[in-house]
Amino acid sequence: MSRHPKHPTPDHEILPAIGQRWSPRAFDVNRDVERADLLRLFEAARWAPSSFNEQPWRFVVTGPRLSPEPHARLLASLIGSNQAWAASAPVLVLSAVASTLARSGEQNELAWYDMGQAVAQMIVQATSMGISVRQMEGFDRNLAQAACHVPATFDPVVVMAIGYAGDPDALTSEKHRAQERQPRLRRAITDFVFDGVWEAK
Amino acid sequence: MSRHPKHPTPDHEILPAIGQRWSPRAFDVNRDVERADLLRLFEAARWAPSSFNEQPWRFVVTGPRLSPEPHARLLASLIGSNQAWAASAPVLVLSAVASTLARSGEQNELAWYDMGQAVAQMIVQATSMGISVRQMEGFDRNLAQAACHVPATFDPVVVMAIGYAGDPDALTSEKHRAQERQPRLRRAITDFVFDGVWEAK
Repeated sequence: MSRHPKHPTPDHEILPAIGQRWSPRAFDVNRDVERADLLRLFEAARWAPSSFNEQPWRFVVTGPRLSPEPHARLLASLIGSNQAWAASAPVLVLSAVASTLARSGEQNELAWYDMGQAVAQMIVQATSMGISVRQMEGFDRNLAQAACHVPATFDPVVVMAIGYAGDPDALTSEKHRAQERQPRLRRAITDFVFDGVWEAK
Repeated sequence: MSRHPKHPTPDHEILPAIGQRWSPRAFDVNRDVERADLLRLFEAARWAPSSFNEQPWRFVVTGPRLSPEPHARLLASLIGSNQAWAASAPVLVLSAVASTLARSGEQNELAWYDMGQAVAQMIVQATSMGISVRQMEGFDRNLAQAACHVPATFDPVVVMAIGYAGDPDALTSEKHRAQERQPRLRRAITDFVFDGVWEAK
């Protein structure tokens, strides 16, 4: 069996659930994500570290069967190029973050950072289960906030499409079909890790 | 063997490398982290997703043997209560983020979020290898930036202590010794995951 084009050959050994994570646009429209499996993803998010254990992350889950009206509204909040493929994902999740600290009302400088940690844990868990996640920042934040009744004290961060990777040829955009098969590219470690002091690159 | 007090009983099954992650203050001062193992942590960070694949994360690694002068300066940038324990960690890492987009010079709204994703992947990898990481936000950002010669175009985010968990009784602070044995607490999933639309909690 040939290697999947999205699975890198890491320079240093890492967990398959980290190395084999990638973000498809093509989802299997006929395969829903079981409720019990979704809960495992959120359980993984739940145990993430956060500044003062604030756990500023919140998630609103929508699906065409579970919650057709919010799902349609959340889908409609996406920019056109995302709508083109995201409709095939069985689950869309809107993430929203508490930008102020519950204990003081002050700005939580690490709120978005901590949200990133929670979502990363969620996606590593998903990858270990054969479930794929693609995050989108291309959406109308006001529309998404209204779609899922997110209070004004929380800020939308990303919309995630969750499901099982599908056939790239089912994508309507030729560009998207090609991107589905391009290898993932990253900087070399020597470009972002420095010993003792920064080195100009 | 009794269960470690920091290892939760998750409500839904998750990877041990996620569930068993916790943030010690007590490190084994006699056990360094091998260079090859550190590289595996950064390799895990390397493959994180990021907005437009900007990979805004940078890391400066210091240790008392590898880079004694930057290490001493970075340690000195920590607030006193962190200095009290962080000196026993064999590695300190300063993370810094490119807050503007390389391709446009505009603000990268997701820079800190993406940094969080990279660090989370790094820590899941570390946990799988028996290596512990504690993140600190309690440090003087200007001092840390100067300690590691971080350019002004990058923002310090956290300082991470990395090593092997040690004996809690070696900690000088009674409060820290107690915290080392307290169970980790998290909101219930029903408090942060909503179906279709937000529910007031």
